[in-house]
Amino acid sequence: MNKLDFALVLSVGEELLDGRVRDLNASYLATELRQLGLSVQAMYTIGDQAGSLLQLLQRLDGQNCLIISSGGLGPTADDRVRAETAQAMGVNLVEIAGARAELQSLHQKFQGCEAPPHFLAQGTVPEGGQALCNPAGTAWGFLATLPGGAHLMCLPGPPVECQKVWTEGGMAAAEQLSGGRQDLAYALFHTTSLPESTIEDRIRDLLENSLNPRLGITAHGKQVTLSLLAHPEAGCSAQALLDRSASEIEQRLGHWIWGRDQQTLEGIVVQELAARGQQLATAESCTGGLLASAMTGVPGASKVFKFGWVSYANCAKSLQLGVSAELMDGPQAPGAVSAEVAVALAEGARAQAKADWAIGITGIAGPGGGSADKPVGTVWIGLAGPSGSHAVLRQQWTRAGRGGVQNGAVRDALEALRRELLALPRLPERRF
Amino acid sequence: MNKLDFALVLSVGEELLDGRVRDLNASYLATELRQLGLSVQAMYTIGDQAGSLLQLLQRLDGQNCLIISSGGLGPTADDRVRAETAQAMGVNLVEIAGARAELQSLHQKFQGCEAPPHFLAQGTVPEGGQALCNPAGTAWGFLATLPGGAHLMCLPGPPVECQKVWTEGGMAAAEQLSGGRQDLAYALFHTTSLPESTIEDRIRDLLENSLNPRLGITAHGKQVTLSLLAHPEAGCSAQALLDRSASEIEQRLGHWIWGRDQQTLEGIVVQELAARGQQLATAESCTGGLLASAMTGVPGASKVFKFGWVSYANCAKSLQLGVSAELMDGPQAPGAVSAEVAVALAEGARAQAKADWAIGITGIAGPGGGSADKPVGTVWIGLAGPSGSHAVLRQQWTRAGRGGVQNGAVRDALEALRRELLALPRLPERRF
Repeated sequence: MNKLDFALVLSVGEELLDGRVRDLNASYLATELRQLGLSVQAMYTIGDQAGSLLQLLQRLDGQNCLIISSGGLGPTADDRVRAETAQAMGVNLVEIAGARAELQSLHQKFQGCEAPPHFLAQGTVPEGGQALCNPAGTAWGFLATLPGGAHLMCLPGPPVECQKVWTEGGMAAAEQLSGGRQDLAYALFHTTSLPESTIEDRIRDLLENSLNPRLGITAHGKQVTLSLLAHPEAGCSAQALLDRSASEIEQRLGHWIWGRDQQTLEGIVVQELAARGQQLATAESCTGGLLASAMTGVPGASKVFKFGWVSYANCAKSLQLGVSAELMDGPQAPGAVSAEVAVALAEGARAQAKADWAIGITGIAGPGGGSADKPVGTVWIGLAGPSGSHAVLRQQWTRAGRGGVQNGAVRDALEALRRELLALPRLPERRF
Repeated sequence: MNKLDFALVLSVGEELLDGRVRDLNASYLATELRQLGLSVQAMYTIGDQAGSLLQLLQRLDGQNCLIISSGGLGPTADDRVRAETAQAMGVNLVEIAGARAELQSLHQKFQGCEAPPHFLAQGTVPEGGQALCNPAGTAWGFLATLPGGAHLMCLPGPPVECQKVWTEGGMAAAEQLSGGRQDLAYALFHTTSLPESTIEDRIRDLLENSLNPRLGITAHGKQVTLSLLAHPEAGCSAQALLDRSASEIEQRLGHWIWGRDQQTLEGIVVQELAARGQQLATAESCTGGLLASAMTGVPGASKVFKFGWVSYANCAKSLQLGVSAELMDGPQAPGAVSAEVAVALAEGARAQAKADWAIGITGIAGPGGGSADKPVGTVWIGLAGPSGSHAVLRQQWTRAGRGGVQNGAVRDALEALRRELLALPRLPERRF
């Protein structure tokens, strides 16, 4: 059993209330807390006005829970989380040992002058609180206990900092409060290039009847992710229960699952190429460098990726990659958005880079440029490899706009290559 | 004056509390409400457990506000929003005229059988409530008044449906409640390449004393944004009050402000290039195509962007852009990450693309590859233009990881070009 009854997630920031910024921390923290066996009972978002936090803390205190907040710890005048927590606790803010010197030296280094008091305030905590260091920024976090017994953990607002402070100190502190990590098992399965409803049809009975492990399904863009969460039950460990369901899911979805847990599709492609000692080159028109940047976003990508071309204009396709103008111009030509040009881009890139594989992408990202024949969303993906070339038409959903078409095309291209590398059936043509 | 004092945004759904799904509706609704002149005082997320909504409504009622919720209106057993609202109001659920027949025929069409009662419940509202039709789904929304006078508008959870019900009925109803669209003025000012604390130092007195317009400051990565929200006051229109503060801010921050409101830095660069009939080419090493994809993410970029190269390996820099191997290899060479190579990349790209401008980026994105001499985060940006070439060292903050270095380098490169186009002072070197 958990020593805490539940958790509450709190987000602090005026920019959240006026809709300028979407909250990325709340769902991250909720996921993390669930993995500690703590269920989140509610989430709250408040602004930066004086007194808002104090009032909320006074209302929430008195419960046996962990309140975990993000935001409001920075150096500016409207960052009031430290001060109002101290006020709720009836204590003063005290300096964290060593923090002042570190903040001074950072300020000297980056700003070339002495740090002002509000900058140094980032290294203080309410007296009696436990400091949580921030390897990704200058605002320390902290954990404190309110007078009525509720525990409050405050993390910084920028998502990278929030996650760092959590993983490098916050999580362990929360684990200790809650009496140790529960015996829970959790897994994610990622698919792409298959509609959510098709996936749901294959596992509907599991979705409807799953209590332990509990099965969930969510779609983000083209990626559909299944989640499994298992608790131990009747002498059976959570992991054993999870493994049983996991193999059922793997059986039903087979090669449509490209990865698990924290894996990314581009990470899988880099890993499979590296395992074979092979290289990929890219030639992009409508995705404009997004595929290359996905590849080079993976640490260590330099082993498998050396060359990319962004051939946005027809003249670039010809000059950079030798695509024949005859394929693109003239009334009888297949046109710049065609299987022929997708393959010519890929083959040009493969030859110049002396790579094992190359991907060429050409399409219509919109909002303009579509025609009855080739509507916005039309994308041809060309793949050139050791045993030849082919192209596949993958029409993209246009509801998510230009970015949606571009991102969808990149995911399809990566998935097409993964399938080629693993000798899986090719992606089918998709035309609406 | 608004007839309502404020708004509250409420999201209902277990999948939000366990972190599976990120809430897209809250920030959408907050933006919409702000445009009606209603400020959001807080946001709440609750789950699907029986009683959760009832309890929250009882606590929030009695205020002169609009509570706007999304989620919990569907056909499943855990969709309790209709029933618990009726309970809070002490009334029954009643059928919306025509809804039953419409739901029956939809169910027959898609499921081929008669609709069960929980499906038909989607066409009911608490007695006395105003139905809001849902052109994108089967769950009607509604607007009702709680016993203590607070107004509650309930919208469906799927973002497309939430937005449709809002735009096609909800918004007009909210406008009527609040006494018509308010005379409010709102503006955002975006800066980059200058630390948040430096910006704050220049406007600290305004931040501390701003009531109307209210001034806010937020940082996302390298972009620092100031917001101004003005209400009419003492015979002075909101716009006049805003304009006065806006010109004060523009005076203090000058050319560090690159844009306002919905503008993006890449959008500004595309617009400035297009206005001059000029073109940009890119040659990227450590950013791996991210600069090209930022440019081509802008609709209409094809007018100003035709060619990009991703020269991730040294051999690619030589083969694609003619960068001399002597610059990169050997103990006396400046090396691949140097001013010389950044300029050579830019000049190679400019010559091949016959473009007016070219940007070359070379650096160390990390996590590996750094040295004492050239630590991770070291980035050289080369700019070649009509009147010559230069390079600037812009060391990037490494705390946000590889992606942070890459994104920071792209923003610095775009800002460097914007400054060149507008004949502003160049970005200073930044070396930590």
